[in-house]
Amino acid sequence: MNELEMNIPTYEDVLSAHERIQPHVHLTPVLTSSYFNQLSGAKLFFKCENLQKAGVFKARGASNAVFGLSNEQARKGVATHSSGNHGLCLSYAAGRRGIPATVVMPRTAPEAKKDAVRGYGAEVVECEPSTSSREAVFGEVVAKSGADFIHPYNDPRVIAGQGTCARELAAQVQGLDAVVAPIGGGGMISGTCLTLSTIAPDVKIYAAEPKNADDAYRSLKAGHIIADDAPDTIADGLKVPLKNLTWHFVSNFVTDILLCSEREIIDAMYLIWQRMKIVVEPSSATTLAILLKNRELFAGQRVGVILTGGNVDLKKLPWMQA
Amino acid sequence: MNELEMNIPTYEDVLSAHERIQPHVHLTPVLTSSYFNQLSGAKLFFKCENLQKAGVFKARGASNAVFGLSNEQARKGVATHSSGNHGLCLSYAAGRRGIPATVVMPRTAPEAKKDAVRGYGAEVVECEPSTSSREAVFGEVVAKSGADFIHPYNDPRVIAGQGTCARELAAQVQGLDAVVAPIGGGGMISGTCLTLSTIAPDVKIYAAEPKNADDAYRSLKAGHIIADDAPDTIADGLKVPLKNLTWHFVSNFVTDILLCSEREIIDAMYLIWQRMKIVVEPSSATTLAILLKNRELFAGQRVGVILTGGNVDLKKLPWMQA
Repeated sequence: MNELEMNIPTYEDVLSAHERIQPHVHLTPVLTSSYFNQLSGAKLFFKCENLQKAGVFKARGASNAVFGLSNEQARKGVATHSSGNHGLCLSYAAGRRGIPATVVMPRTAPEAKKDAVRGYGAEVVECEPSTSSREAVFGEVVAKSGADFIHPYNDPRVIAGQGTCARELAAQVQGLDAVVAPIGGGGMISGTCLTLSTIAPDVKIYAAEPKNADDAYRSLKAGHIIADDAPDTIADGLKVPLKNLTWHFVSNFVTDILLCSEREIIDAMYLIWQRMKIVVEPSSATTLAILLKNRELFAGQRVGVILTGGNVDLKKLPWMQA
Repeated sequence: MNELEMNIPTYEDVLSAHERIQPHVHLTPVLTSSYFNQLSGAKLFFKCENLQKAGVFKARGASNAVFGLSNEQARKGVATHSSGNHGLCLSYAAGRRGIPATVVMPRTAPEAKKDAVRGYGAEVVECEPSTSSREAVFGEVVAKSGADFIHPYNDPRVIAGQGTCARELAAQVQGLDAVVAPIGGGGMISGTCLTLSTIAPDVKIYAAEPKNADDAYRSLKAGHIIADDAPDTIADGLKVPLKNLTWHFVSNFVTDILLCSEREIIDAMYLIWQRMKIVVEPSSATTLAILLKNRELFAGQRVGVILTGGNVDLKKLPWMQA
């Protein structure tokens, strides 16, 4: 086994993760909508990870990583660089365990995001908004504290944690034909592949991606990872590239990646809020967007739809802007 | 028995209603939030009727009324006057049964609300925005069609339908000490009283009401119905007065009515969206508002919180306005 193979999590890891994180995460509900069934021509089952702790599925992976640490490592704490949901969730999980967490964020990140991380008890260390500054500052943090680096998605503990979502979904909804989830770095999709390829290998797995950040789509077609420099999409959780662990799952188990435009994402997001009465972030809405534009592909099927998160600025909604 | 007594629904009616409407309504989830537990000092269980069909608990009462009609009456259809949630829910239920529904609405009502009613297949008949015009137009509609008038809340079929919500909640959450629900005309509170006074008589029932529309509060203190002319509150579902059937339940079974300001309603609404990732209308938020300002009253208790609905104009949110 090479190093990659050694790091690939197994379904046993998902089961351990599930037992480990159960006290710290919600068993999120599955909602249905006759309106969306009619609109899509399929039977849709929305797995509401926007209702998860910290408002996003990443509470699963982060909790698995944090609660799996030895006591010795836990004392030294955890660290990551993320101005988004992973930083928030790592702070949440570290706060639950009562251990130190440091999140390196660009000084230009919104104050509300820094406050949310601090609200869970983590420390925010600011860097300049560049990759070199981020890496330098992050290196210092880890060197000084000995904190364990928890990558947002290219970490077997994180992927195994995300895999618990599809395990719940498969128990909540019988006879699924397909599952649709957004793809960015590939953490949620990888966890979904890991679980379903073991317990329900006939279920097709579709990933939804913004046209404006279609690196995973092009990677799948090319047969190797393509990483874009600076994709621009409203689905800000989906801008990051695949890495070797997530590429393993995507390349082996994803049926197809389907693309949607920025307009389609915003329209789908608005429709979800309006008809389902839930707050979802743009990334989540890519799922409904691709379902509505690929009606014939899903017609008559039972489709699980993973709504990944709900962390948005309620004062800056895309349909309020000129 | 006088006429009022003959009309008071019983818990048997709730059981029949539940069986009758089950295929047509959602068993809505109960959500929890450690953030709100901490903030309130209580253990809160949010019954999410905003995730109900048509976005509001009134789908229960309307479905019970519509599906309880004889075939003969059903052919003549149903009618109501309501520019709000009841009109929408009656249209929904009539559409499910495939019978005619007419909703009399002021011509000044928002086009979006008229479209939503039409979207479920009902007919909108416009009147002038005055009580006299509404009554005249409504009288004509009923005289011509023979449609059954379904009152938004002062109807035993409607109250029995709303009572199914508390029945679900009591099955979903063990050992509740109290339940909090908003009060307007008193339909939801009456259904809650009907159910809990039978199956869990020790559970205290608190009603939440806007200070700006405190007619139910003043009625309870005075010992008789006081109806205001034109209360002005953002919680537009709560502007209507109690009537004899709902007064029966409120006066006999409600522990207390607690008031909140417009600012408190908007703040609580924003907090619910932000922390729970669900869309609730202002009326729903009165519950959290009174919980947060009466901390000592609920400290340490297990409290059911009925979030009644989520029908808001997403393009006109109160925290976006100057």
